[in-house]
Amino acid sequence: MPLDGVRALVFDVFGTVVDWRSGVARDAAPFLARHGAAADPAAFADAWRRRYQPAMEAVRRGDRPFTRLDVLHRENLEALLPEFGIDPARMEPAELDALNLAWHRLDPWPDAVAGLGRLRARYVIAPLSNGNIVLMIDMAKRAGLPWDAILGAEVVRAYKPMPEAYLRTAEVLAMRPEEVCLVAAHNDDLAAARRCGLRTAFVPRLTEHGPGQAKDLAPAQDWDLVAEDFGALATRLGL
Amino acid sequence: MPLDGVRALVFDVFGTVVDWRSGVARDAAPFLARHGAAADPAAFADAWRRRYQPAMEAVRRGDRPFTRLDVLHRENLEALLPEFGIDPARMEPAELDALNLAWHRLDPWPDAVAGLGRLRARYVIAPLSNGNIVLMIDMAKRAGLPWDAILGAEVVRAYKPMPEAYLRTAEVLAMRPEEVCLVAAHNDDLAAARRCGLRTAFVPRLTEHGPGQAKDLAPAQDWDLVAEDFGALATRLGL
Repeated sequence: MPLDGVRALVFDVFGTVVDWRSGVARDAAPFLARHGAAADPAAFADAWRRRYQPAMEAVRRGDRPFTRLDVLHRENLEALLPEFGIDPARMEPAELDALNLAWHRLDPWPDAVAGLGRLRARYVIAPLSNGNIVLMIDMAKRAGLPWDAILGAEVVRAYKPMPEAYLRTAEVLAMRPEEVCLVAAHNDDLAAARRCGLRTAFVPRLTEHGPGQAKDLAPAQDWDLVAEDFGALATRLGL
Repeated sequence: MPLDGVRALVFDVFGTVVDWRSGVARDAAPFLARHGAAADPAAFADAWRRRYQPAMEAVRRGDRPFTRLDVLHRENLEALLPEFGIDPARMEPAELDALNLAWHRLDPWPDAVAGLGRLRARYVIAPLSNGNIVLMIDMAKRAGLPWDAILGAEVVRAYKPMPEAYLRTAEVLAMRPEEVCLVAAHNDDLAAARRCGLRTAFVPRLTEHGPGQAKDLAPAQDWDLVAEDFGALATRLGL
């Protein structure tokens, strides 16, 4: 059986469990229309997402204290609007707050809920996301994601791919790193987890970045397990 | 409707959601018999629990860094054994580790799982316990407690009744304190939550400490809501 000795499966979420691009685009479309911006809502989602890593990088470098993702998303949204011809100073803050919650309302990939339900029968399952706790709670309640707990960056006060994000999560679970497996659609996340001693499962999401996706189409290393979706992952694990 | 404006119900767990005394006694009984101790297993549970507050007090005072409850329970167990004529130095550590997990295997009060299932339809529900995350995960998986997230002392690095335990929990939820209601069987916990601005619901557990219980039999203040069990609480809230 693959993943012998593993007791917890922790999941990357944005891209791996949920389709952030379609979800953000869906909520951005009426906002853009209302403000006369002709932009493609998917391009808006991509532009918002492009500011994700740089914003966390300031925290990782220690240039600012740990700041949860909802706050970073909100800052990034204001910074982004002028690119689309919208002046954030002329907006009601409440309207931006509402749009910021698009990240709480993302739909799971079609296999995710049922697959997690099967995996949960044997493993502790939890997000190990850079998304903050209430974002993950709102998303899970809306989508029916059956997590056993909400773990991730806010619990351990460290953003992936910092080693602390993986190692402290194992410590919280009172497990050795090799008893924890990261499930992710991103080779770089898996590589960082493996460097910390975690096990790794790759589930490609070939349209996370839209039809022209060029990265993470295939495993970049010999990950412990590769499965085409969460249902296949459960089947490979005998569940 | 009571609790208007409340969006999250957070729960004390030991005593309020689960019956720690019976659960610990059940697991202690074969241990005590194996080691020739004639003690009443419930008295053993009581003695173990008596060391709970003093152990956390060292953390609250700042005399030691935040240390999760599993570690405190394990230390308290070793300290306790001589009272029952057992020399911890002659024990296998693994046997004490196993007994320490009795706290992960506590049964919920009969109304708890169904009541939480009803409450979950409208509110975010989460433990706000001094128990650590993996303790709460193991307990919930075994008992079927349908938490939306595991919150509590380990997430916010502060033990109740320190104000930080309540205030940082509200902050994690991105809610104002008055949007969060603590549900507890203990008047002192509710009093501390109220001082922080949280709403309060009292659910008495008349046999938490056994048949001779003398405390927390009735509300000590005009809590926002008083209900005899979680089913009655859900009914009072129109669920």
